[in-house]
Amino acid sequence: MHFIQPIPTIRRDGDGVVILDQTCLPQRTETRCLATLAEVATAIRDMQVRGAPLIGATAAYGVAIALTRDAGDDALEHALHTLAATRPTAVNLHWALGRMGARLLPLAPGARAEAAWLEAEAIRLEDQETCAAIGTHGLALIESVAARRPGPARVMTHCNAGWVATCGAGTALAPVYAAHARGIAVRVLVSETRPRNQGLLTAWELREAGVPHALIADNAAGLLLARGEVDLVITGADRVAANGDTANKVGTCLKALAARDAGVPFYIAAPFSTLDFACPDGGAIPIEDRAADELLCVAGLDANGQPATLRQAPADTQVLNPAFDVTPARLIDGIITERGIAAAGALRELFPAEEGAR
Amino acid sequence: MHFIQPIPTIRRDGDGVVILDQTCLPQRTETRCLATLAEVATAIRDMQVRGAPLIGATAAYGVAIALTRDAGDDALEHALHTLAATRPTAVNLHWALGRMGARLLPLAPGARAEAAWLEAEAIRLEDQETCAAIGTHGLALIESVAARRPGPARVMTHCNAGWVATCGAGTALAPVYAAHARGIAVRVLVSETRPRNQGLLTAWELREAGVPHALIADNAAGLLLARGEVDLVITGADRVAANGDTANKVGTCLKALAARDAGVPFYIAAPFSTLDFACPDGGAIPIEDRAADELLCVAGLDANGQPATLRQAPADTQVLNPAFDVTPARLIDGIITERGIAAAGALRELFPAEEGAR
Repeated sequence: MHFIQPIPTIRRDGDGVVILDQTCLPQRTETRCLATLAEVATAIRDMQVRGAPLIGATAAYGVAIALTRDAGDDALEHALHTLAATRPTAVNLHWALGRMGARLLPLAPGARAEAAWLEAEAIRLEDQETCAAIGTHGLALIESVAARRPGPARVMTHCNAGWVATCGAGTALAPVYAAHARGIAVRVLVSETRPRNQGLLTAWELREAGVPHALIADNAAGLLLARGEVDLVITGADRVAANGDTANKVGTCLKALAARDAGVPFYIAAPFSTLDFACPDGGAIPIEDRAADELLCVAGLDANGQPATLRQAPADTQVLNPAFDVTPARLIDGIITERGIAAAGALRELFPAEEGAR
Repeated sequence: MHFIQPIPTIRRDGDGVVILDQTCLPQRTETRCLATLAEVATAIRDMQVRGAPLIGATAAYGVAIALTRDAGDDALEHALHTLAATRPTAVNLHWALGRMGARLLPLAPGARAEAAWLEAEAIRLEDQETCAAIGTHGLALIESVAARRPGPARVMTHCNAGWVATCGAGTALAPVYAAHARGIAVRVLVSETRPRNQGLLTAWELREAGVPHALIADNAAGLLLARGEVDLVITGADRVAANGDTANKVGTCLKALAARDAGVPFYIAAPFSTLDFACPDGGAIPIEDRAADELLCVAGLDANGQPATLRQAPADTQVLNPAFDVTPARLIDGIITERGIAAAGALRELFPAEEGAR
């Protein structure tokens, strides 16, 4: 079954793109036109688009937008450089920019814009296929836990790795949607995912899709796992190192530790574009630090239903705000890719070096 | 050095008490008079007072307030019953009520009110001594990690177990204040502690005391521990079972798992009133579930500095909101009590059954 995004997360519109502005979700569903390189860079940096696969596709479109407006000799290099500097951790960004550079650099500057749009469209369409394949492979895991006990399969996730984070059905949620489409009862435990509360995006998209779910504080994961209230944990990834160590939204490694302690299987869902074979292990993955205001302020709707921001702590409060953490391969039971499920340390068996781009 | 609370968390005022209303912190410092049993029960249930030791003392005063207004034969039993039903997890509540009952039941109803005030005052003053003793014993742990490397001793905590949570200097933060008073450099990593954000209370009281600190998302604990950025973890407790399993604010067991994985010592600070020798292990500790709105709504100050509440998710979103979790004794390096530091499974060595009240 082909998954159709209820609202496209990104689509070409003339010489620009229209994105679903994720900083407004779940309170408001708003789209936004991006027509310049600077607008695309800001959209990625400020998390109007987010999710590793979607960041990659957006960056590819950003190159096309830049080259359409600027046919100069160094426009490509400038675009690649500008976009690469937006966010450090998700490697899909660099994968997409690398692919755009490899495709476009051999061409004459005047021929690059047209080719860039074609390549960006190809990346978007391939991501749809990739998400679908991850869904098919991950479905087997959900079928397996669903067969073990009556009632819905209880799947815990973290952050948002659903359709909102990709060009297709999502990564971590793709198996959930695949199970739901087959009539397998699933209930998703959705972590709030402080400080940016991307869990609210997950709750929103599951509600739209009619998938039963419950929102939990990130802090509740340990108790629920220890009590036997979770059958399976699946999260997405922002970068998987060659040895299987995985950077994902901060808090992921706490769930992996608690899952291992409780004997609950813990899986990562990640496409090839998230795998970084050039990175030997988690220690080599750069971890983005984000602004203090993500912890000091919160956004939502006021009593009149109007968007508002509240301050929760003094503006000069010292904050440490790493946006990602690293889950060591030893805590990961497998990585669900578009080619199947690999042991964390055996990704090369699915993606041999001789056929891969890196 | 005697720790003096900048604002008393609870103090007698005529036939009632004045409390620091913790639902207003850190945005506003407001006190509130409690003059009836119902007001005291509401204050505990709605977390106007919170923190296991302070809940115990408040309940004791609640008995005195009830008996002052109602000299009837069954007033004592009614007060004990009403207050015991406010919150299920923190055992200090039941310890304090048990102590009040044991002291007052043998007396004639007409003599109970006066004795109740004396006993409640005694509980409050003893809590001050207990906090001070926990500070002295825990200080040795901070001195030990401070001696190991240059720079401040980096202590991670969870929730609020400082002076705001007690009648004295706090439990988990008492060693921090003791170190600060001796000129030992300390930096406290303060977990936000969703969903009630009690970490903001901890940041507030550390700021008032001039102790360096940084606020972190609960999710960041794993990364910071794994990176070697924490020397010691100390949290409070709401109930310690006979075998050392410890119920504390939800999220504590995730920190304990991450600390163990990173080789960082993890300690619980808990007075005798938090120890429940009648409870064999963590599985027997009742875990309070709280309302969905704690996750769906957030409170803070609007752009004009006025208190406001925002809604972050639809009111009918399903929520699981356990308020506590259980850290197994095997993950606890020691329990800091007023009599010294015990291995989690060896608390009886400090509190032999023959001399204890239970």
